[in-house]
Formats: sequence, structure tokens, C-alpha cells
Amino acid sequence: MARPQILVSNDDGITARGIRHLVEVMINLGDVTVVAPDGPQSGMGHAITIGNTLRLQEVDIFDQAAGYKCSGTPADCVKMAKHVVLADNRPDLVVSGINHGSNTSISVLYSGTMSAAIEASLESMPAIGFSLCDYDSGADFSHVLGYVESIAAQALEKGLPQGVSLNVNFPPRRNEPIQGVKVCRQANAKWQEEFDQRVDPNGRRYFWMAGNFVNFDKGEDNDEWAIANNYASIVPIMYDLTAHHAIPTINEQWEL
Amino acid sequence: MARPQILVSNDDGITARGIRHLVEVMINLGDVTVVAPDGPQSGMGHAITIGNTLRLQEVDIFDQAAGYKCSGTPADCVKMAKHVVLADNRPDLVVSGINHGSNTSISVLYSGTMSAAIEASLESMPAIGFSLCDYDSGADFSHVLGYVESIAAQALEKGLPQGVSLNVNFPPRRNEPIQGVKVCRQANAKWQEEFDQRVDPNGRRYFWMAGNFVNFDKGEDNDEWAIANNYASIVPIMYDLTAHHAIPTINEQWEL
Repeated sequence: MARPQILVSNDDGITARGIRHLVEVMINLGDVTVVAPDGPQSGMGHAITIGNTLRLQEVDIFDQAAGYKCSGTPADCVKMAKHVVLADNRPDLVVSGINHGSNTSISVLYSGTMSAAIEASLESMPAIGFSLCDYDSGADFSHVLGYVESIAAQALEKGLPQGVSLNVNFPPRRNEPIQGVKVCRQANAKWQEEFDQRVDPNGRRYFWMAGNFVNFDKGEDNDEWAIANNYASIVPIMYDLTAHHAIPTINEQWEL
Repeated sequence: MARPQILVSNDDGITARGIRHLVEVMINLGDVTVVAPDGPQSGMGHAITIGNTLRLQEVDIFDQAAGYKCSGTPADCVKMAKHVVLADNRPDLVVSGINHGSNTSISVLYSGTMSAAIEASLESMPAIGFSLCDYDSGADFSHVLGYVESIAAQALEKGLPQGVSLNVNFPPRRNEPIQGVKVCRQANAKWQEEFDQRVDPNGRRYFWMAGNFVNFDKGEDNDEWAIANNYASIVPIMYDLTAHHAIPTINEQWEL
């Protein structure tokens, strides 16, 4: 039986530590091809390259996986993988990450990691984004690799519902092992930004966006609760954004 | 009674024709402030600027509205409007567009126009993205302006359900007037890409992404049907991407 074809991407760039860990795990499950950005693409959301050209170049940096760096966004990488690199070899699974930092709650909207997964799910390929909720550049990934393998193996074996991909987050390494996995909803939380205004050497003002993540959610069935309580979180997500419940409301209340 | 505060943004850039039309309509409804990208940001999805600085500069190009151009993405523009330009004057309504081109179906994911609206809805501000399904640079907007005003006026008056923003698309100008407005769901359609491979003057290959939009949806309750049949479409959309129906499925079938 042919080994599964697994496509790996990310948003931290092809040389990030997180993607190396993800490749190391995936070679246990199938034949691995990496198509990832040639530099950091954090916060790129579901951006794609319109009105500009794309570059794609093979790189020899993985021991047992083919590697290609792409000048585009994570979503571009998945499109180029499907249509150029793996045009004759459709992936059975697409995984993205392991992201250096959290993609819980509404961070899923800003996340390049998850845009690669969502792009793959648009193409009806089972897809998972993995993130470690630790922004430390020396972050320890060792406590999550077993979970990454188990979750990816089950997605390969069982597939995912049509139109659904998985947003998987792991807590940072603590003194005790991860307590387990919670399948849950996106928490009601958001970023509260502040803009730090400064003046450049030419006397012109510029801004840095900064801010804090604030959790308003009191429930225990969401990803923020899971991470805070040392569980891995799996949020199944959809690319159909329709707020079906609002259709009758607007039809009844508005004059259209 | 104070006039409503209306924030206008877009993704085609502050000098686009579509945003001028939107401003002209909005000054009938309230006091208007424009914070929009200083250049084209089409296809930027929900990208934000991380690890780089932002510029913001007042521009005097609108007759009856304050204008600010921002070096960032549409989502950045909304964040800067809320925290810097309108820090003491929270918008009652945020409108984005009028986009030059369609944002129906899954184009909502790639759309910078809609990311401005979604960003505003994250901040609990009623928000609407308007798009004209006409890519012609000389496109006629005159047939949609009455609808834009009516829809925006009702959002001001009645508000929108928490967590919901509106993705409004208009058909191109045809020989007969628009037939009306359909509140509907996101069509099951997608882009089918092709990559046009070329060689640069230095002998290195590069790619242009091209492709066609393909509609798989046979229903009549979706935005693609509405536009094809000369109706305006309103799709209420959510930023909570949780696929609630998949949670029990995964809990039952997977070993976690």
C-alpha cells in the first residue's frame, strides 16, 4: 500500500524550529513534502498574492522530506503545492506549524498557520494547524510531539467532515505532563491593542502595534480554558462564515 | 441629537473610486472619518502588521470627511481608527468598500474589504463590507448607491446581532435595474487556480497565480445565485469559526 502523502507548511518560515519538529513527526506517518514561506509570515491571515509574482525554490534542509521555499503567504504555499509541486500527487493530509505562539480564540483569524489549513480544507484535503502557546524562541516542543502524531494519524485514518479543519493548540511545557485533549469551541476573547507612538530620526511619527489578549469567556468548553488548565485544545473550524441564525432576523426586521 | 460617527475603510486604497462613492453616500447619514490603506491591499485577508511599524497621515482629498491614509492592512486601519484617530469618538458604524470586484462565497476569506468589517465586528461595532461585482476600472457604481445608503441606514438604526457583520455584494450594472435584495448564505464555490510559469531576464523561473471562479452550488438561497440573477446579496457572517456540529463527531470517533 502506498504511504500517505503529507504536505507540511507554516507561517514562521521554512527554517523555523517548529516546522522541523513537525516534519520529524510526519515522516513516521507518510511521505513528506514541505512547501513553506521563505520568511516569517505571522499575522498574514488568509492573505494571498494578487498582482505580484511568486517564486518557488527547492531547498535541501530536511533529512527525509522534500523542501520548497515560496516567496508568498501560507495560503499561497498550499496553492502552489497543490498545483505545481504536488500536481500529480494530491496530499492525503495537510499540516501546518508547529506555530511558535498561540492561535487560540479569534487569533485563528489573524493566523497564517491556520490559513494554510483552511486553504487546504477549501480543496477538500484534511488539514490541521498546530500551535504551541509559547512565544519563547527557545521553547521546548518535546511534550507535544506525541499528541501531534496521534492527532495527525487519526485525521489520516478517519478523515474530517467536509469543510472542517482543526485548530490545535498546546500549552507550554509545565512541570506536569499535558492533562489530555479537549475538543472545544473558540473562546470569546480578543486582543486589546495599544499603539505606541514614536518619532523617527527625520521627525516623522510612526507606530508600533502592541496589546494584550483578554479573555471574556467564563465557560469551560473553550480553547482558552483548555490551555489555561494544561490541556491540548482542538477546535474544529469552518470556512463557511454564514451566520445562519441572523438571516431570519434581518429578513424580519429590515425593509429590503 | 449628535450625528452618528461613521468610519469608512477599504482595501483598494484611499484614492480608489469605490471609497469616494462610499464617502459620498455616508455623509448623508453622519459624520464621516476615512482611515484607509495608502495603496492597494486586495487579497490581504485578515492580515495585520506584526514586527513592523505603521504610518498614519492625514490627507485632504474628501470634501466633507476627514481622511487618513495608513501604511497597513485594512484590519490595521480599523485598529488604528479605533485606538488613535477616533480614540475619543467611537464609531457607530463601520463601512468598507465599495470594493472593485466580487467578494461573494469564499472570497470573503481572502477579502481585505471584509477583514475591515470583521475587525470592526470583533470590537462590537456594526460593520458592513460593500462590493461591486465588476472588475472594470471604469465600472459604473450609480445603480448601487441607493442600496448602500438604505442598508447602512438600517444598520445604524437597528444594529446587528452580536458577532455578526454583513457581506454585501452588488451585480454589475445591467440594462434593467437591480431586482431587489436577498439575505442569503455563502455559496459553495471556489477559485480554481492555475500557475503561469515564466522565466525572468536572469533565467530564473517565476509564477503568476491565475484562475477561474467555479460555482458548485445548485441552490437559490446563496450569494452567487443572487448576483447571477441581478439581485444584491447580503450574507451575514460570523468571526466565530467553530464547527459546532463536528465537536460530537470527533469526540465519538477519535481516541484522544
